[in-house]
Amino acid sequence: MRISIIGAGRVAYHLAKVLHAEHQLTQVYSRSFERAQRLADQFNMQAIHSYAELNPSVDLIIIAVSDQSIPQVIQELHHYVPNVLIVHTSGSTHLDVLKQVHTRSGVFYPLQTFSVEREIDWCSTPLFIEANDLIDQQYLLKLASSLSEKVYAYSSAQRLSLHLAAVFACNFSNYCYDMAKQVVDAQSVDFSLLYPLILETAQKAVQQDPRAMQTGPAIRGDQNILAMHQNMLNVMNRSDLSQVYTLLSQQLVERHQSK
Amino acid sequence: MRISIIGAGRVAYHLAKVLHAEHQLTQVYSRSFERAQRLADQFNMQAIHSYAELNPSVDLIIIAVSDQSIPQVIQELHHYVPNVLIVHTSGSTHLDVLKQVHTRSGVFYPLQTFSVEREIDWCSTPLFIEANDLIDQQYLLKLASSLSEKVYAYSSAQRLSLHLAAVFACNFSNYCYDMAKQVVDAQSVDFSLLYPLILETAQKAVQQDPRAMQTGPAIRGDQNILAMHQNMLNVMNRSDLSQVYTLLSQQLVERHQSK
Repeated sequence: MRISIIGAGRVAYHLAKVLHAEHQLTQVYSRSFERAQRLADQFNMQAIHSYAELNPSVDLIIIAVSDQSIPQVIQELHHYVPNVLIVHTSGSTHLDVLKQVHTRSGVFYPLQTFSVEREIDWCSTPLFIEANDLIDQQYLLKLASSLSEKVYAYSSAQRLSLHLAAVFACNFSNYCYDMAKQVVDAQSVDFSLLYPLILETAQKAVQQDPRAMQTGPAIRGDQNILAMHQNMLNVMNRSDLSQVYTLLSQQLVERHQSK
Repeated sequence: MRISIIGAGRVAYHLAKVLHAEHQLTQVYSRSFERAQRLADQFNMQAIHSYAELNPSVDLIIIAVSDQSIPQVIQELHHYVPNVLIVHTSGSTHLDVLKQVHTRSGVFYPLQTFSVEREIDWCSTPLFIEANDLIDQQYLLKLASSLSEKVYAYSSAQRLSLHLAAVFACNFSNYCYDMAKQVVDAQSVDFSLLYPLILETAQKAVQQDPRAMQTGPAIRGDQNILAMHQNMLNVMNRSDLSQVYTLLSQQLVERHQSK
C-alpha cells in the first residue's frame, strides 16, 4: 500500500513510524516544510512544499492535523487528488466533514495519547475506522488489522462519544496528576512519592468498575478532612484547586449516596 | 515484635497480611466482632470484644480505623494500655491528635490505595513514619524498613500535604475514570476500550512532568470541540459532567496560556 501523510506532529510521527515497516510511505506535507522534511528523512518519504505536488497514484492519504484544520485541508486535497481515499485521524470530527467535500473519505482513529518521547504499543491500541464506501472500509479494516488486534468499525456518533469519554479518562485525569504535583511542590515534597498510588489507581480502574473502586474522604463523608483540605488550599492561596476540590467532592458525595 | 490491630477494614487487612509473615500478631479489635473474628482467623490472631481485653505487653498497637474515629479510639486505648506505643495509619490526622492523649504515640502511614481484591506491593509503597519519642521512631523505622524500601520520617505537615495531593492524584483521577465510564455507558460503548489510554496516561505521568504531558482540546484552544462536547453532555442531560468539563477545561486553558 502506498500512503501519504498530511501533518508532521505527534500522531503523524507515530503513524509514519509504524506504517513504515510494512507499507510504502510516499509523501509528507506540513505547513512547516522543515517539520515535513524531518519526518521524511526519518522514514524515507518525500517532503513536499504544496498540495499541488501530491502524487495522485497513492492508495491512501492520512490527514493527521488539528481538528480545526481538517475542513480547510480536505478542500485543498480534494482539488488536487479528487479520486484518492482520504482519512482523518480525529476522534471528534464527524465523517461528514470529509464526505460533504470528498466522496472517497474515511476515518482512522487510534484511541491513545501520543507523545514523541514514548513508544506506542499499537498492537493493544484500539483503532476505529469508518468509510463512506464499503470497499474503502474493507481496505481500512485490513490496514488497521495489520497494526492492531483491536479494530472496530464505528459510526461517527459512537466515536465522538468515545472521544468525549477520553477527555475525562485522559486529559482530566492527567490534570488531576498535575494539580497533585502543584500541591506537593508547594511543600517541597517529591512528586515521585505519589507514583505507586497513581499507577495502582489506574490499574484498579482497568480491572473493576471505577465507581466500586472509589475511595477518599468525600465518599466516607469525612467532613473534618474535607474542611481541613479546603483550609490548606486557602492557606496556599489556590482558589483554583479549591474550586475543583469542592465540585468533585460534592459530586462524589452525591454519586455515592445514591448507591 | 508483638503487634495488635484496632480495626478490621481494608488497611487493617493488608497490614495484617504483610506483618503476619515476620511478626507476631496478637489481638484484633473491631466495632464489629464478626469482622475482627474473620481477620483473626486468617492471620492467627485473637479477636477481642472490648478494649478491656487488650494485652498490655505487646510492642505496638496499630489503629487502622476511619480518621473520624481516631480521637475516640485513642481515649479508650490510653485508658487500658497507657504505656504501649500506639500509631495511627492516617494521612490526614496530625500526630497531636494522639499525642495530647497518649505519650508513646506515632504514625505509620502507607501512601497507597487499598482494596481487598488487589495485592499491595509493599516493597514499593512509600511509608511515612513519625513518633513523639526518638526511641519509638527508631522502632517504627525498623518495622517500616522490614516492609518497604521507601521509608520516610515526615512531619505531620508534610504528610498532610501528601495526603491532600493524593486526593487529587487518586480519588479525583478515579472519579475521572468513573465519569468517562458513564459517558460511554450512555452510548452502550464498552469502557474497556479506554483501558490502554488510562494506563498510558498514568505511565506518562510517572515518567515526565504531567503538565508537559497534557493533551486535549482545551489546551489546543479548540473551541469547536469544546462546544460540541458541552452540547453532547447537554443532550445527555448531564449537567454534573458538564460542570466538571467547564471548570477543568477553563483551568487547563489558563494553566497552559501562561506557559
